[in-house]
Formats: sequence, C-alpha cells, structure tokens
Amino acid sequence: MTIDSIRRLNAADSDFNAQLDQLLAWESVADKSVESSVAEILQQVRSRGDAAVIEYTNRFDRRQLTSAGEFQLSASAMAAALERIPHAERAALEQAAERVRDYHQRQLQVSWRYTEADGSVLGQQIMPMERVGVYVPGGKASYPSSVLMNAIPAKVAGVDCVTMVVPAPDNQLNDLVLAAAAIAGVDRLYTIGGAQAVAALAYGTETVEKVDKIVGPGNIFVAAAKRAVFGRVAIDMIAGPSEILVICDGKTDPDWIAMDLLSQAEHDQQAQSILLSPDAAFLDKVEVSLQRQLAELPRREIAARSLADRGALIQVASVEEAIAVSNRIAPEHLEVSVEDPEKYLPQIRHAGAIFLGRHTAEALGDYCAGPNHVLPTSGTARFSSPLGVYDFQKRSSVIFCSPQGADTLGRVAGTLARGEGLEAHARSAEYRVKD
Amino acid sequence: MTIDSIRRLNAADSDFNAQLDQLLAWESVADKSVESSVAEILQQVRSRGDAAVIEYTNRFDRRQLTSAGEFQLSASAMAAALERIPHAERAALEQAAERVRDYHQRQLQVSWRYTEADGSVLGQQIMPMERVGVYVPGGKASYPSSVLMNAIPAKVAGVDCVTMVVPAPDNQLNDLVLAAAAIAGVDRLYTIGGAQAVAALAYGTETVEKVDKIVGPGNIFVAAAKRAVFGRVAIDMIAGPSEILVICDGKTDPDWIAMDLLSQAEHDQQAQSILLSPDAAFLDKVEVSLQRQLAELPRREIAARSLADRGALIQVASVEEAIAVSNRIAPEHLEVSVEDPEKYLPQIRHAGAIFLGRHTAEALGDYCAGPNHVLPTSGTARFSSPLGVYDFQKRSSVIFCSPQGADTLGRVAGTLARGEGLEAHARSAEYRVKD
Repeated sequence: MTIDSIRRLNAADSDFNAQLDQLLAWESVADKSVESSVAEILQQVRSRGDAAVIEYTNRFDRRQLTSAGEFQLSASAMAAALERIPHAERAALEQAAERVRDYHQRQLQVSWRYTEADGSVLGQQIMPMERVGVYVPGGKASYPSSVLMNAIPAKVAGVDCVTMVVPAPDNQLNDLVLAAAAIAGVDRLYTIGGAQAVAALAYGTETVEKVDKIVGPGNIFVAAAKRAVFGRVAIDMIAGPSEILVICDGKTDPDWIAMDLLSQAEHDQQAQSILLSPDAAFLDKVEVSLQRQLAELPRREIAARSLADRGALIQVASVEEAIAVSNRIAPEHLEVSVEDPEKYLPQIRHAGAIFLGRHTAEALGDYCAGPNHVLPTSGTARFSSPLGVYDFQKRSSVIFCSPQGADTLGRVAGTLARGEGLEAHARSAEYRVKD
Repeated sequence: MTIDSIRRLNAADSDFNAQLDQLLAWESVADKSVESSVAEILQQVRSRGDAAVIEYTNRFDRRQLTSAGEFQLSASAMAAALERIPHAERAALEQAAERVRDYHQRQLQVSWRYTEADGSVLGQQIMPMERVGVYVPGGKASYPSSVLMNAIPAKVAGVDCVTMVVPAPDNQLNDLVLAAAAIAGVDRLYTIGGAQAVAALAYGTETVEKVDKIVGPGNIFVAAAKRAVFGRVAIDMIAGPSEILVICDGKTDPDWIAMDLLSQAEHDQQAQSILLSPDAAFLDKVEVSLQRQLAELPRREIAARSLADRGALIQVASVEEAIAVSNRIAPEHLEVSVEDPEKYLPQIRHAGAIFLGRHTAEALGDYCAGPNHVLPTSGTARFSSPLGVYDFQKRSSVIFCSPQGADTLGRVAGTLARGEGLEAHARSAEYRVKD
C-alpha cells in the first residue's frame, strides 16, 4: 500500500491561489432524497412520538423494541460499563475528563452590571440552558472522547439535564462510550440514533424530554435532521471532514510530522492533511516517511486515499508566508512546529485550535490536553469557535432605570421613535419623562 | 377603532397550560415558492456576480442601474445625510450610539492563558471577524436604530470591514438610515437588498467583498436567503414577530402599562403583547386604557389586530407565579413593573431583555438604553442571547506542551487513541513520549 502521489505546490507559483482554492474545494452535497426521508421521519416522530421512534429504531438498527422503556439506559448500566472496562482505559478517560473539565471551567462567563451616575443599572444576566442533547454515533465510529468533549462543557455550564442518545445497531453498545457517559455526568441515556433521535430531542416524546440545544457529530441523516430543526432548537454546527495544517521550519523530525499528517488522514477519505515548509528537502523527507509509515497502519487504505485526494506538501518562502497561507485556509487544526512558535501567535487570525512547538502533537488535543476537539471545519474558523461552555450559557440584558435615567432616556427615545413613525413607542417612553 | 376583544386567561384554570400553548403557537411558514425563487437568485448571483445583482435590483426595486458603481454609496454621501437631518434627530442618534457603544464595550472578551506545573501553556486566543455584512430593510420599515444596533457591536469587536446593504426601491433612501450608518462607522454601503444582496455578501461579486457573517432583519426572501447560506457564512438568527411580556403588581399607572403593550402591538399584526398580574381589577383598568389609547395611535389598525389575535391579559396568583409563567414563555422583552423588582431577577431563567421597575419602559431598550434591541424571539431565549460583541469575535484554542507535558499527555492520548482504533493518532502522540 502506497500513496499514488501527493500533491506538491509552491506558494511562489503564479497560479498558487487558484491551485489552493481547488485543493480546499469541498462542499457538502445536499442530497434531496436524504432531505425528504429526514423530513418524513421528523414529521412522524413529531406527531406519533415514542411509537415512531420505536418503529424507526427497529427498522434501521435491527432491534426488537416493544416499548419505550427498552431504549432507556439506567445510570447503573453506565456505572456498570465503567467497572467493566480495563483499568488503563478507565484511568486514561478519567485523566482526560479531569483536564477537559479544568480547562473548560475557565470559560465560564458570569453576570455583570454597572450603575450609572443617575442611578440606572445596566448589565447582563448569564444563565445555563436547561436541557441539552448530545448525539453520539454508534457502531465503528463510536468514540468515548466525543462523549467527554460534548457533555463536559454542558455540565460545567450548569445545564440541568444532559441527555445522550447513541444508537445500538444489532443491540451492540460500546462499553467505553457508556463509561465515558458515566464519567462526564450524563443525566439520561437513550439507545436511539439517526434522524429519529434528533427528532425526539427536538420535539420531545412521551419518554424523551424536548431539549434546548443538540450537539454532537453524526452521519448525513443526523446532519440533515439537525439542519432541519435548527431554529426550533439550537444546534452546534454541521461539521465537514477533519483537517490539519502543519507549518514546519524543517527542523522537527520528519517522522513526527509525517505521523501527524497521517493521524488526520486516517480519520476518513475526505480528511485533509497539508504541510507548509520553506525547506524543500524537508518536504521530500516527509514524503518518504509518509510512504514508509503508512504501510504499518491498520487504516492505511483510508489514509492513502485521503492523502492522494486531498493532501498536499507546499513549499513557502518563509514561516511568515506559511502563516499568511494558513490564514487564507482557516484550518480546523494548525500545528506550528517551529523554533519560538509563540512569536507567530498574534499573526494567526483564523484557526480552530493552534498547537505550538515540536512537542505538541495535534492528537493530544483530540483526547486529553484540555481544550475541546469539536472545532470549526472547512474554513468556518473565520467565524466560528471551538465548542465551549459559552455554547451552553445564554444572556439576558438587564435594564433598571432610575426616575432620572428614565427622564433622560425617555426624551431621546421619543425623538427616535417618532423618526421611525412609532408613536406608541414614543408615548410609552415619554410617560416616564418628568413634566 | 377598537379591539374586538382581548383574550383573558387565568393561570388557575385547569387547562391554562394548553391555552397558553395555543396563545404562543407561531410557526414561520416555509413557503416552497419563496425557497425556489431564492435558490435561483443565489445561484445566479453566485455564478454571474454583479450582472445578476444589477438585473434583480432593477427588476425588484424598479431602478435603472447600468453598472455596479451605481449601487455603491460613498462615505461622503453618508456624511452628507448626517448634515441634512434635523438637529434634534442627529443629537438623539448620537446619544443613542454613544450609549450603545459604552454598553457593548463591556462585552469585549479577551484572550486568556495559563501555565501548568510542567510548563505547558493552555489558553484561548480571541480575534474579531474580518468582514461583516449588515442587512437593513428599505422602504417603510427602514429603521436607523437597527443600523446602530447591528453595526456598533461589530465595530466594537474590531471587525475590519462592516458592509451595509439597504435597498433603494424607486431610488428612495432614508436619510436617517444613512446618517445612522455614518454615526455607526459603517465602512461600505451598497444600495441593494433582497436575496440578491444576501447572495452578494455570502459569495462575493466583482464589487461586493464576501463577508464572514450576515446580520440584520429582512422580509421572507431575506430570511430564506440567510437560512440557505447558513454554514457558508455565519448568520444571526431568523427572527419571529416581536413580543413583550409585562408582569405588574397592579401598582403602576394602567395607562403606562397599556401603552407599553401598545408599543409592541404597533410593530406588526403578528406581534404579541401579554400582561400578567395578580390584580384582576388592574387587568380591567388596563383593558379600558388600551381601548382609549388605541384610538389615538396612527398605527391603530395594526395594534388592534395584534392585540385581538395574539394579545392576552392573564391573571396569576402572585408575582412568583407570573415569573414561572414567564419562564415557560421565554419572552423577547420582559417588563417587571413591580415593587422591589431586583429580588425576582435570580428567578428569571429565560428572557431576551429584562426591564426592571416602573420607570423602565421597554421602548427605552429599543433605542438608547445601551443594550441591543436584536433579541431572541418565539421562545428562543431558552438558548439564544441578545446580539452582542461576542457575536463578532471568535476563539482559537491554544496548546503549547512542554517536553514533560507532552510525555504525560502522550501516554494518556496513546491509550485512548488505541481504544478508538486510531493507531496513527497513538503513534503521533507517543513520538513525543520520552523513552
């Protein structure tokens, strides 16, 4: 197994920008047949509740549920899974959870207020959401790290009830996923998935309580369902394939960098791994290392396809130019594997997560460094942030006018309201103006 | 002109919750013909750029544009409008802008980091978005306050370029809107609107630079276009009709409360005004006052329709019960017109903006109190916040592992990665583990 060929680009080429655009091009295909299947599922669950959830779950996940009680999993079942898993994995999950919790606690936002000279008080009251749903994929792509990364920020925010859904195709559940749910403090767990689980969370059923926000990754049916219920409930994001951009000055071990690129490429065939370096000989060494190390990987077919289709080794004039290219790409993960990486940090305008220095492998961020691994993909780091505690808190403006404040503001509001033709607004404000 | 009848409810009735659900029921109608028109407009602007924008603008806004240069408005044109408007309106706009700026500056989030015992550094770097588009409706619903409320938070966040679009049907533009753009510091202004303006902002044209986020209200074509481009760019929210919920202990002047309800009802026929009070005689007085004061309003037909269709006077047992009902509704605007309102603040879980005390008319918040008037509607205050500076900033996680930190974390990540079957992740992390 080798990679057919890895794209080589040079930022000095006159058509580099066009080549880069082509490399990055990726668009989720809006599949009309998926959309209409999902619309039907949403409608059925909305009108028939648990009965529809049971029917779809039996059909899609090959189960034999006869009542809604059977798709609920108790807290003791989660705790039992935690007891069953190997000690080393339990310890690793607990260490990861502790670090994720510690980092996210620093994101907590608190209410604030100030008093003006006339005695009026202005501020913002910050409250957690009441109920959040976490979608966890089933089967092979069922990842305990994803449970931690989605559920812990919600619990840190103070969400009253975190409901997790995870499908159990052929009645199979992943013990590590259940153990992670126990560690993360998931309040309720239902073994359902697909659009029917999203519908249950968005509309509520006799058994599943309606939530305020749905987070977590899923297949195209889950993504289409989340997009369809967006507005009725909040959703996190519709994630594209995962990406890594590595900037290296050529002085990190090429095997390390090659493995960092492979770690992204092994996710799926559409994942994207890009290396930027001013050192052409280093790019050559990484290419050789990629071929050699690929051969040893269990997921080599996926990684080879990803690197051949979407990977690139790009020569740049300098680390500064690499940063400029990175800002155009707005990558999900950015490794800055150079001497004195901190000096480039202020120039990094757009990236989901920034890994500084030769020792900071991106994979540490996937599991246990502390920051979230749910990150903006496909250039959306231009306007999106990592999932965080702030995603589970919301704000209310607070205004408490003193009589003097109401007098001052009432005059201004009256003038502006009449300018907009809104007479009742003007009168309501002016009632509080002193004579 | 009178209100046919205003709904009276009592929270003590056994079917109160069902009645309340019926009162609140509102769903935006997804109009398939609007969606397909919008899809066509988006596609045309995406592939043909300015030429398509000009064609649609000439057709829908009855204009005679021949080149893209004609839909650009210069900074001096905005400044000239500011000179032309009456002095009192200019002064009021400037005072409002100053207060909005002052309040929003307190929302600025700053980068943070911490160093662990082993020398690893973790944190979050916070940066403004580069380019933001503000949609401002044209014609009768063209509101200068909306320009201030959408553009100022973006400028406070440090957005490099704020682009405003406002249609000019029959070549008509509102001087107050242009003056507000000058005061708010809008960087570029294009006199285009509808789905074609949203498309120009989302995809870019030869003239209009692609933005990262689109905010601002609009008609169903604008809302459908924003929903369609969501994901490619960020959007604010798809707003429903405006609502006010007033809680009064019966001791505020009934004329004041009636006018507060009318100020919401005059927005549009679907607006919702609800009063909750434990004092039945007070509800009677407000009803009488509503009828009397309605007659004097220029927009009485709209307000009467709104109150008859969607308004309600609700008797509750106590202010505490009123707060509980309010939490079920999660109103956009909540007036707490009672003695010692601050004591109820911690119980208010969901509301876009909270107006405390008898002197704090909701209308002050629409114009000049300082907080934003772009607020979550239709119960979305359960999971959404007022528009703010935070909507124009985004975060990048920062991780800089020391060799010791990489050693500790590499072992944990290696264990978890193998548990997920991701061998390249494990090896990438373990390369940084000391032997």
